[in-house]
Amino acid sequence: MNGWRHPVPEGWEEQAWAALEEDLGPGDLSAVCLDEDTSVAWTIEAQAEGVLCGVGIAAFLLEPEADSSSEFFCDIRFEDGSAIGPGDAVLTGRSRATQVLSRERTALNFLMHLSGVATLTRRFVERVEGLDVSIVDTRKTVPGLRILQKYAVRCGGGRNHRLGLFDAVMVKDNHIEAAGSITGALSKARASVGHTVRIEVECETPDQVEEAVKAGADIVLLDNMDPFTMSAIAREFRDRVILEASGGVTLETVRPIAATGVHVVSVGALTHSAAGLPFHLEVG
Amino acid sequence: MNGWRHPVPEGWEEQAWAALEEDLGPGDLSAVCLDEDTSVAWTIEAQAEGVLCGVGIAAFLLEPEADSSSEFFCDIRFEDGSAIGPGDAVLTGRSRATQVLSRERTALNFLMHLSGVATLTRRFVERVEGLDVSIVDTRKTVPGLRILQKYAVRCGGGRNHRLGLFDAVMVKDNHIEAAGSITGALSKARASVGHTVRIEVECETPDQVEEAVKAGADIVLLDNMDPFTMSAIAREFRDRVILEASGGVTLETVRPIAATGVHVVSVGALTHSAAGLPFHLEVG
Amino acid sequence: MNGWRHPVPEGWEEQAWAALEEDLGPGDLSAVCLDEDTSVAWTIEAQAEGVLCGVGIAAFLLEPEADSSSEFFCDIRFEDGSAIGPGDAVLTGRSRATQVLSRERTALNFLMHLSGVATLTRRFVERVEGLDVSIVDTRKTVPGLRILQKYAVRCGGGRNHRLGLFDAVMVKDNHIEAAGSITGALSKARASVGHTVRIEVECETPDQVEEAVKAGADIVLLDNMDPFTMSAIAREFRDRVILEASGGVTLETVRPIAATGVHVVSVGALTHSAAGLPFHLEVG
Amino acid sequence: MNGWRHPVPEGWEEQAWAALEEDLGPGDLSAVCLDEDTSVAWTIEAQAEGVLCGVGIAAFLLEPEADSSSEFFCDIRFEDGSAIGPGDAVLTGRSRATQVLSRERTALNFLMHLSGVATLTRRFVERVEGLDVSIVDTRKTVPGLRILQKYAVRCGGGRNHRLGLFDAVMVKDNHIEAAGSITGALSKARASVGHTVRIEVECETPDQVEEAVKAGADIVLLDNMDPFTMSAIAREFRDRVILEASGGVTLETVRPIAATGVHVVSVGALTHSAAGLPFHLEVG
Amino acid sequence: MNGWRHPVPEGWEEQAWAALEEDLGPGDLSAVCLDEDTSVAWTIEAQAEGVLCGVGIAAFLLEPEADSSSEFFCDIRFEDGSAIGPGDAVLTGRSRATQVLSRERTALNFLMHLSGVATLTRRFVERVEGLDVSIVDTRKTVPGLRILQKYAVRCGGGRNHRLGLFDAVMVKDNHIEAAGSITGALSKARASVGHTVRIEVECETPDQVEEAVKAGADIVLLDNMDPFTMSAIAREFRDRVILEASGGVTLETVRPIAATGVHVVSVGALTHSAAGLPFHLEVG
Amino acid sequence: MNGWRHPVPEGWEEQAWAALEEDLGPGDLSAVCLDEDTSVAWTIEAQAEGVLCGVGIAAFLLEPEADSSSEFFCDIRFEDGSAIGPGDAVLTGRSRATQVLSRERTALNFLMHLSGVATLTRRFVERVEGLDVSIVDTRKTVPGLRILQKYAVRCGGGRNHRLGLFDAVMVKDNHIEAAGSITGALSKARASVGHTVRIEVECETPDQVEEAVKAGADIVLLDNMDPFTMSAIAREFRDRVILEASGGVTLETVRPIAATGVHVVSVGALTHSAAGLPFHLEVG
Repeated sequence: MNGWRHPVPEGWEEQAWAALEEDLGPGDLSAVCLDEDTSVAWTIEAQAEGVLCGVGIAAFLLEPEADSSSEFFCDIRFEDGSAIGPGDAVLTGRSRATQVLSRERTALNFLMHLSGVATLTRRFVERVEGLDVSIVDTRKTVPGLRILQKYAVRCGGGRNHRLGLFDAVMVKDNHIEAAGSITGALSKARASVGHTVRIEVECETPDQVEEAVKAGADIVLLDNMDPFTMSAIAREFRDRVILEASGGVTLETVRPIAATGVHVVSVGALTHSAAGLPFHLEVG
Repeated sequence: MNGWRHPVPEGWEEQAWAALEEDLGPGDLSAVCLDEDTSVAWTIEAQAEGVLCGVGIAAFLLEPEADSSSEFFCDIRFEDGSAIGPGDAVLTGRSRATQVLSRERTALNFLMHLSGVATLTRRFVERVEGLDVSIVDTRKTVPGLRILQKYAVRCGGGRNHRLGLFDAVMVKDNHIEAAGSITGALSKARASVGHTVRIEVECETPDQVEEAVKAGADIVLLDNMDPFTMSAIAREFRDRVILEASGGVTLETVRPIAATGVHVVSVGALTHSAAGLPFHLEVG
Repeated sequence: MNGWRHPVPEGWEEQAWAALEEDLGPGDLSAVCLDEDTSVAWTIEAQAEGVLCGVGIAAFLLEPEADSSSEFFCDIRFEDGSAIGPGDAVLTGRSRATQVLSRERTALNFLMHLSGVATLTRRFVERVEGLDVSIVDTRKTVPGLRILQKYAVRCGGGRNHRLGLFDAVMVKDNHIEAAGSITGALSKARASVGHTVRIEVECETPDQVEEAVKAGADIVLLDNMDPFTMSAIAREFRDRVILEASGGVTLETVRPIAATGVHVVSVGALTHSAAGLPFHLEVG
Repeated sequence: MNGWRHPVPEGWEEQAWAALEEDLGPGDLSAVCLDEDTSVAWTIEAQAEGVLCGVGIAAFLLEPEADSSSEFFCDIRFEDGSAIGPGDAVLTGRSRATQVLSRERTALNFLMHLSGVATLTRRFVERVEGLDVSIVDTRKTVPGLRILQKYAVRCGGGRNHRLGLFDAVMVKDNHIEAAGSITGALSKARASVGHTVRIEVECETPDQVEEAVKAGADIVLLDNMDPFTMSAIAREFRDRVILEASGGVTLETVRPIAATGVHVVSVGALTHSAAGLPFHLEVG
Repeated sequence: MNGWRHPVPEGWEEQAWAALEEDLGPGDLSAVCLDEDTSVAWTIEAQAEGVLCGVGIAAFLLEPEADSSSEFFCDIRFEDGSAIGPGDAVLTGRSRATQVLSRERTALNFLMHLSGVATLTRRFVERVEGLDVSIVDTRKTVPGLRILQKYAVRCGGGRNHRLGLFDAVMVKDNHIEAAGSITGALSKARASVGHTVRIEVECETPDQVEEAVKAGADIVLLDNMDPFTMSAIAREFRDRVILEASGGVTLETVRPIAATGVHVVSVGALTHSAAGLPFHLEVG
Repeated sequence: MNGWRHPVPEGWEEQAWAALEEDLGPGDLSAVCLDEDTSVAWTIEAQAEGVLCGVGIAAFLLEPEADSSSEFFCDIRFEDGSAIGPGDAVLTGRSRATQVLSRERTALNFLMHLSGVATLTRRFVERVEGLDVSIVDTRKTVPGLRILQKYAVRCGGGRNHRLGLFDAVMVKDNHIEAAGSITGALSKARASVGHTVRIEVECETPDQVEEAVKAGADIVLLDNMDPFTMSAIAREFRDRVILEASGGVTLETVRPIAATGVHVVSVGALTHSAAGLPFHLEVG
């Protein structure tokens, strides 16, 4: 058990080292109080209810160094995506005290942030239970953490919107204006991108939706529309195109929006406003 | 006016480019809809009340490229640390449409996150108005963003605790245990670190505080103590040592804690649980 | 005119510097023969017929340094994607001799390789003229040059298959075996990936194609099938799914394959076996 | 047996990881179809006749991770430089299916490209069999791959010209012009570079050759001269200086050029126009 | 025994690899003379009297590769900070000859430079024996080596001044001028920096010292003052502030300066002018 | 005038930024005392006699930022390699106070170290005046600074030995042992390396020298031989091979060694034991 779910977010080792470096800087001054030989048994416990994410990174930072004492270990007790509660021991081990004290904060910071995102996602997913709809994230992510945050969204039961500007086309008002019309923009895009790429069009009115569907859009984004309008659009187009609702969705508004018949609801808050889920490391 | 306050957080250009790269990946597919020659006038507006932070980064990403049209510009209208409200235009300019559409999201993501941290800090600072106390951050930061988050705390009127493990000594229970006593740990630390380094001791009881002060601690951290105990400690030791209160401080609890007479209250939530402050970029 | 076509392949500046560094190492020993003040007029000429690609990189390496003499310049005469022939001057300028002699080879190496890829692509595209089919590349690219090579394919009139493992799903025999069946694998994939991702299934028999289409594949890859089989499949499925032919396609075999009615023909040779297109830099 | 020949090209691990990253991007989407526990036996086979190069890189990418099942292995069956033919199993192993499917393409891309260069080199070397001459590469390499390509040339039986601008002096027409004469340029160079550096002069006429030799050149490059002229020069100068023939050498022209008595024939095509040698990975 | 003392200077592995890369470049040409299977027993010996520093880096570079022969080893015989003399074997092992010959110089270069700094520091520390004073370094370090040099100073028995501009405030004449007065500058600094940061003021006259102490400086730097003046200042202020003497201190002048009653003497020469301590690697 | 001599050591900009980053860390705390608008006139003066090196780096760090006040400037007054003395103003300018105070130390550290190396080299060169001999450096350099140190040696009038393991062959006792004999090792090397590479053999006895010359060595290193032996060798072999004397050469011993008739004397102390040449920055 390595804690991760597939697909594993590439590059996480580098991010773990970079975050550790950010904390250690030129070195841990307090280590002078410790004996190189002291070892400690330790456990990371959740301090609130939520969804676990990042335990593989925490284990990577705290696992015993190669060639260290045979008493040393690091055991993952819950996998990413697990529902956890206060007191649940997610990771436990024995290592050199200097290593644990120098790396504990970095390991906890990953757990706290990523589990916070996974937990908030789970809340949204629970609100739409029973409806044939997906909760997806957006590109409103914390700078530098997008791939990990999108992984956390998946651990919470959500799905991912495009990862960035490179893996799908999104036609917005400016693209439409530059190309003269939705039809023009779609035709320009279709003539250029490869056959593996989906094209989404951001629409603000039912007329735009109609034009986008006719012009061959794969996905239509219903931007800040009211549920009544969305329902009407869904009745007409749900079988011909993928419909995505977007715009300031909250835990309060997500169910009525999801109930309109759209296929996907995208929620920026999952990644830009998730509070950290508290964990602590207990020694002894 | 470049938007920044001193000391400027070093390394922000690299972080801006890295975040942009995360979004652009191998390239912006949607750019095929645009004309290379199209330019747009644009404005970034706040969508809620709060404290601005990160406008220098946003300007850096959106400023016209060298040798571009003389009509192009990018003007900073508010500096970091400014109080702003819905509709306030913090940054405005004219640039190539391809540049604006490729970089807008990254610029907004920095503004949203950093202004969120600055705004939450301001809330805490306002709660302790009139008291002779500082609100400081902790090492519970979002991985990879510590230096920028600590800058945002300063923009919100807070101060910084140590930046990492390298710029001050923090003696914790494990250090004490390894060294035999607080006095032993402090003596080991003092014999090793240079004359520019302050030493803080984490205490859980008044007896520990007394020992730490006698042993020459510069700062004493009162860990999760009740206000009554903290008041007693403050009366006795406030003039001899810097007193810091810590442990799950919220907007509700911060004022009674601050009123105990401690010098400093440290608040993890400033950096691990700040919601993003919303901004959007308007074209035209 | 900056020479590039949209979308510009991100990261090309770093690749240009890295290639220059590879050549310069600790420094250009031969520069001791030159005078710092000597300037030269120069022109890069094509030495064979083909399609230009990489002129923006060459210009970037050879353009005058900031604050240099006002006589200095660097002019792009043809844009990427242009048909060129022997003697065509694609880039011309005047700069310090030390700069030109240190960077000429690196600039030419980019032009030679990328124009080679664009030129070979154009040859394949010409062979299928009049047919409603796209020529696309594969992941059989030269290590480290994928993004630039895929850009060169676009400049030659081809399109891009997925950029890597991250922007589309390809279900292969091993995935099918692990999941029990094509239907099982597709269902696993559909349940996990987001709504912007297309799913392709690699098929070796008409039965597999039928199962893949029924199970909801977006794209079906016809792996090394004979033209007769592909024609039969195309007649039945062309309107329900995107059909891609693949497997050792050459300039000789591409037209009969394209004529079977598939939408896309993918050609590994575009990126793994293109000969360089010759250019040289003339001084004076 | 690690597959490599000395001197090993430094930096290949970083290049292997970078190429893998290029393919994986944020993660392998198709991995969701696989079971983490599935393992596969696999073999990489050559699909054409040629010279092997890059097997150490392929093994590095496909070797089992530390602490993995004791059934896992990765065996190199042929070393770089070996003559191989269709069906030859160059590398075989057993590993986790997720690892093999994520890394197979990157491993094959290195093998294909480097073996292509080694194979073309061997062809040239075979053409000059029996003559006392070396086939060497040039600086006309694929950007970013010079060190590996030059290693492949050595595996094919060729030798390396200078690695870049830093390890030998090459006096060209512009250097001569700036210094006033070949003699002047050589004297400037000799006065500056250390005693371990050889100096080569590019000559277009017999008179230039004579001046270069008199002025103390270590190597003379005969640039695009006809075989008759080269023979005359070789008769006169072969014992006094190293003679190198250069300029558009092909498999057809290499033997007559080599037979003129020059010591070295340099061939740009080795690195700028080698077709990939095909390999595939078979599972089971 | 890993050779290091706490706190270990972070980042040393990267510096070791970078220095090795600087020497290896594209590869060790001389390795062609060696057999891959040849192994050698080797010992690194000191060639002069001094203080050891860097043995952990040398061991890291020379330790046997994973999975190598069970006869191979690398033993650290002295820890950093040990007094050593000519002929002392500080590190000994058995490894592949190709590895030892390619890495020996880099390992020795670290040992030579860092032991040189530690040795010079020890000389200064010995000169002030019996006095209650610390010898500290400055920011006059060799570019790129600050963290390692400051570690070497600690190994020699010295202590560290601030690591850089980020971990303490130093108020210099320009800061004073800009703020109007020492009092003004201190008040500006105190209002901005956190409670873990010490503030030092550079003073050239007793009056400045008095103002600095009154304004609440933590440390006062006595810049190039004569011993008589420093003694007077020490008598008055030694119990109220940390006093540091600075300015061209040599082995000849350090004791009279230290005897003035200051707490700290800072010596730039420790890091900018230490001669290398000679070591060599013996084979067999 | 940009201060540099050819060939410019590649990579110096990255080293300048890295050294600055080392000093700045997360930011210059003392900058809070300064006004963003304050500018200062400044001059860097030498404080001792010696040879200047590194003025181009210092200028790069202190030159005004783009788009800054038109009053700002940065003037180089002496070029690298110039003889300078106490009070000589090598660089002068006007810039923002925050920039000067944050970068002054880094600029001075480069000047101090590199001018120290150039100055020590000049001392050695002066000692052998009138003799037909070169003073060259070794690979005993300060880790990470080799390219810059070797540049400094050139500025001091010395020449460079090989830059690293990659640009020349050095046959040592271990290579000889592995190959069976000097002749065997040379023959192995000659068969492998290209025609631009020189081969040096390290010899400890006249017999070895004789064998090396017969076997075709380009350079012979006379390792720690006495002057009498070296003279005898020089008389016999000076016209047939390049002779290099090496081993603990000092300012006292260099002339008698040089007078033996060798072509080259290599001196490790140039780069491992040069004291810094003092400079300071004066404001106003």
